[in-house]
Amino acid sequence: MRIALAQINPTIGALSENTERIREYYHRGVKGGANLVVFAELSLSGYPPKDLLLYQSFIDREKELIKRELLPLTTENGRALLIGTSHKQGSKLYNAAILLDRGKIKSIHMKTLLPNYDVFDEERYFTRATDHHIEMLDDLPAAITICEDIWNDRDFFPEPIYNTDPLEILYAQGARLLINLSASPYHLGKHKQREEMLPFLAKKYNTGIIYLNQVGGNDGLIFDGSSLVYNNRGELLYRAAAFKEELFYVDTDNLFLPAAELLSPGRDAVDTIRQALQLGIRDYVLKNGFTKVTLGLSGGIDSAVVAALAVEALGSENVLGLMMPSPYSSEHSIEDATELAKNLGIKYRLIKIEEPFNTFLNLLNEKKEPIRDLAEENLQARIRGNIVMHISNREGYLVLATGNKSELAVGYCTLYGDMAGGLAVIADLPKLMVYELADHLNQIHGQTIIPKRTIIKPPSAELRPGQKDEDSLPPYHILDPILHFYIEEHLSAADIIERGYEKETVEQVVWMVDRTEFKRQQAAPGLRITARAFRTGRYMPIARGYDYRYPAGREPGEHKTSSKETPTQ
Amino acid sequence: MRIALAQINPTIGALSENTERIREYYHRGVKGGANLVVFAELSLSGYPPKDLLLYQSFIDREKELIKRELLPLTTENGRALLIGTSHKQGSKLYNAAILLDRGKIKSIHMKTLLPNYDVFDEERYFTRATDHHIEMLDDLPAAITICEDIWNDRDFFPEPIYNTDPLEILYAQGARLLINLSASPYHLGKHKQREEMLPFLAKKYNTGIIYLNQVGGNDGLIFDGSSLVYNNRGELLYRAAAFKEELFYVDTDNLFLPAAELLSPGRDAVDTIRQALQLGIRDYVLKNGFTKVTLGLSGGIDSAVVAALAVEALGSENVLGLMMPSPYSSEHSIEDATELAKNLGIKYRLIKIEEPFNTFLNLLNEKKEPIRDLAEENLQARIRGNIVMHISNREGYLVLATGNKSELAVGYCTLYGDMAGGLAVIADLPKLMVYELADHLNQIHGQTIIPKRTIIKPPSAELRPGQKDEDSLPPYHILDPILHFYIEEHLSAADIIERGYEKETVEQVVWMVDRTEFKRQQAAPGLRITARAFRTGRYMPIARGYDYRYPAGREPGEHKTSSKETPTQ
Repeated sequence: MRIALAQINPTIGALSENTERIREYYHRGVKGGANLVVFAELSLSGYPPKDLLLYQSFIDREKELIKRELLPLTTENGRALLIGTSHKQGSKLYNAAILLDRGKIKSIHMKTLLPNYDVFDEERYFTRATDHHIEMLDDLPAAITICEDIWNDRDFFPEPIYNTDPLEILYAQGARLLINLSASPYHLGKHKQREEMLPFLAKKYNTGIIYLNQVGGNDGLIFDGSSLVYNNRGELLYRAAAFKEELFYVDTDNLFLPAAELLSPGRDAVDTIRQALQLGIRDYVLKNGFTKVTLGLSGGIDSAVVAALAVEALGSENVLGLMMPSPYSSEHSIEDATELAKNLGIKYRLIKIEEPFNTFLNLLNEKKEPIRDLAEENLQARIRGNIVMHISNREGYLVLATGNKSELAVGYCTLYGDMAGGLAVIADLPKLMVYELADHLNQIHGQTIIPKRTIIKPPSAELRPGQKDEDSLPPYHILDPILHFYIEEHLSAADIIERGYEKETVEQVVWMVDRTEFKRQQAAPGLRITARAFRTGRYMPIARGYDYRYPAGREPGEHKTSSKETPTQ
Repeated sequence: MRIALAQINPTIGALSENTERIREYYHRGVKGGANLVVFAELSLSGYPPKDLLLYQSFIDREKELIKRELLPLTTENGRALLIGTSHKQGSKLYNAAILLDRGKIKSIHMKTLLPNYDVFDEERYFTRATDHHIEMLDDLPAAITICEDIWNDRDFFPEPIYNTDPLEILYAQGARLLINLSASPYHLGKHKQREEMLPFLAKKYNTGIIYLNQVGGNDGLIFDGSSLVYNNRGELLYRAAAFKEELFYVDTDNLFLPAAELLSPGRDAVDTIRQALQLGIRDYVLKNGFTKVTLGLSGGIDSAVVAALAVEALGSENVLGLMMPSPYSSEHSIEDATELAKNLGIKYRLIKIEEPFNTFLNLLNEKKEPIRDLAEENLQARIRGNIVMHISNREGYLVLATGNKSELAVGYCTLYGDMAGGLAVIADLPKLMVYELADHLNQIHGQTIIPKRTIIKPPSAELRPGQKDEDSLPPYHILDPILHFYIEEHLSAADIIERGYEKETVEQVVWMVDRTEFKRQQAAPGLRITARAFRTGRYMPIARGYDYRYPAGREPGEHKTSSKETPTQ
């Protein structure tokens, strides 16, 4: 039997458009000789459709499209179609895989394990399935499963999350082929997880595995595709393209033969990040109906990397750089930003913020001159925010915010200032990774895209004379690991200190993270790269106490806070 | 047996402080002769603790406080303490009620039904309990349950959400008294729901009921307290204070006697909204470590109502009004704002934005003069945003945003402009309710607080000459019901049109709501008043398609969009 796997990029909620794309891939698959064409989890609606699922009209429309548009396809030629979609039975909604064959719904396979952690909240929408049945595909008994359903193996995971393992049931029924429809978002390390777990299952159950994943950027989540095929020896037969659509074929006989060649395991190199961010930018911009973007260019590394990624995603003609020096900007900031813009071949404008800054000071400072406090630092950033938004509103550019994860974590950023924008491209990239990515971008382009001085000079917000990030923050090679332990690993301050970091520093960092949650809750959506991203995967209260982390008598208030913003506003 | 019920207001995560408060109320209850003192759901951590629960150190600290601080209390005098707290067993976390008696943990009752809809996401953190056992309190067999556990009665609800009903099991075991520890957030109509369901249960099971609810504002959620006691005839014996702490007592014998007097059912009058918002402001400000607030006063009704509520919550000495007229502001805007400030006895400042506005126009407009487009409307709002944030940052005021739900829903507001702030007080109040509340505020104060002209004049953003809200939006008496049907009831445009609203209008409104999701995702936290609030209870994708709502050939793009912002930026 020949199966076509359609790794497509649907747009959330664009039901007709997605149906059209499904039809197109189905026809291609049939032309390619497939007896069955498969689409990933919720590929009709795109994943995650979120509260669109609470609208009965949305569910009805899905049902109607399946009935009117997709079912008839399978009548004409007798080739089956397996699609991921929501499915209502009575008052219960299921996350389902529906097999369409000869103009009829041949069977429905519903998702049993509903992830409800990190970025997932499927318990909000779906009911857990309790029924499991194998499907005969020609003479091959198949376990048709959806994403999480295969991630609960008690021999692989020391502590499985769920009490049920659908695979145990399905293989007890005699399954020989595993087809898994996934919508598995990318994060660093995800490839490795998949490529360790799947061959384990292949060997354990002596089964062929077809793992089909969605591709595309949907708000903060980036789906990488990278679909996988294993034979029953756990040998990798095929790895589909990462970060783009692809149609590929599997002849099921091959799933039970030794691999012709051995593919090396997938790796999450720095280039994966580049590709992920590129797709994330392109899809967010285009799926929102924009074509061009603008961003502030400070001469620093963050905006340089974001500009370079935007050019890769959208083309240099669709990127506008804005240089907005303040009275405290260094000379090299304009030089470096100009060099970058020229290297990238993008348009740029120079708009000095000195005049509006002075006008505000006239209005707000008794002595009409700068007093150089935090408020004035923020004011400069907010004037820039006004300018980029003005140009966005007037000329139709989407604004890219350029802050990195390290500064967002400690609140070293200005709400409505440098945080302003439609998409925060590197909001989930720690500063050290930004450096790595900058080097990598220069390397793969075979020339200096990001100016050397931009990479070498000490990071600075340039909001007061001689300011450096390290005046307010620990050096990034210390800050970033502490943030990783606190945010991704959920270690306490005490745990992190035990790992050899200085007590004062750890407590200062943790304090800054906790007290600046209010900023992150008003941040632009960020593209997810790590295993724990702000906003999409981390939910924290704003008004809260902190006393449990401090020994009695120790006043938390004595900590320094980040310099670009007052502690809680 | 005499039971004391402690309806307290914990701060999220302030574990020591909350323990201190629990100790204090426990002592008061014991002094009042109680054999048992009861605290509400998760009263040790405050509800909802969110991802603090992912920190093992947090769970450990709770356990430690129970062991070191709370258990010893019960040794001293032999009076028991029932507390709501998270509880870990192995790798599983439970939402539990722990009974402390004679220095020991006497029993643990774990929550079975975990709400995961609307504002709730308990499946993210907790495991569902499967074990149910009654507790002997003296000779009275009690069903000790947590919040949702009692909300699944198959005789009361036509379609219960869950397959299990813990009450059926517990009453089959012979329970005679129901104690329910809740953290039930207020929304309009919630009192009615509770006061219909609880007497139904009392009669069905012939049981006394003690329903204890948390009180206090925690970010966007406002817990109203309003704890309830019913006898086994379903007669209301006691209703505790709304929106404030209270300690009250129940003698269990009385639960099986006729009520001495019949209390009338609770009502959600407009005054409930006033009290809820007042508590929401006070708790958000104080729990965040602030004492004073500032806000823009436009002379319009939204800022007037917010200012009046802020004065009620924090005192007039802690509220600063900022009048920031633009060249397009009407004369009466300053007069009305001044009258309001005087009526409220608050300080105010006049800061004209004409100069910074002109400076920006000089910088950004080729002809150095206004062209009066959308970008310039937004610019004025953002200059005001800069000013309020500057004063906030410099002087330590928390900024109150003053937008209402109607304008937030259709995106008739400026990101980083009038949307700037720490707390959006009336973000969940439709415009018509704002009017109702304004009238009510004048009424209860027995004098005109909110100036008559503020209430009477047609709403306007005053961002271009002669602008009125109704130039861009349907009249509020039409807009508000459409928004209610679309956002709270999840009706489709077609359903709403069927209810008698004009097709063009409904489609325009729905279109505006859908296309402005990006703004709401960067909005300040808002206080929840309705059954479906943005941000806390509604999760929508930003980049998405809309085709399914429109018949083929109908281009959605032809719709007008809201005037204060471009369609998607």
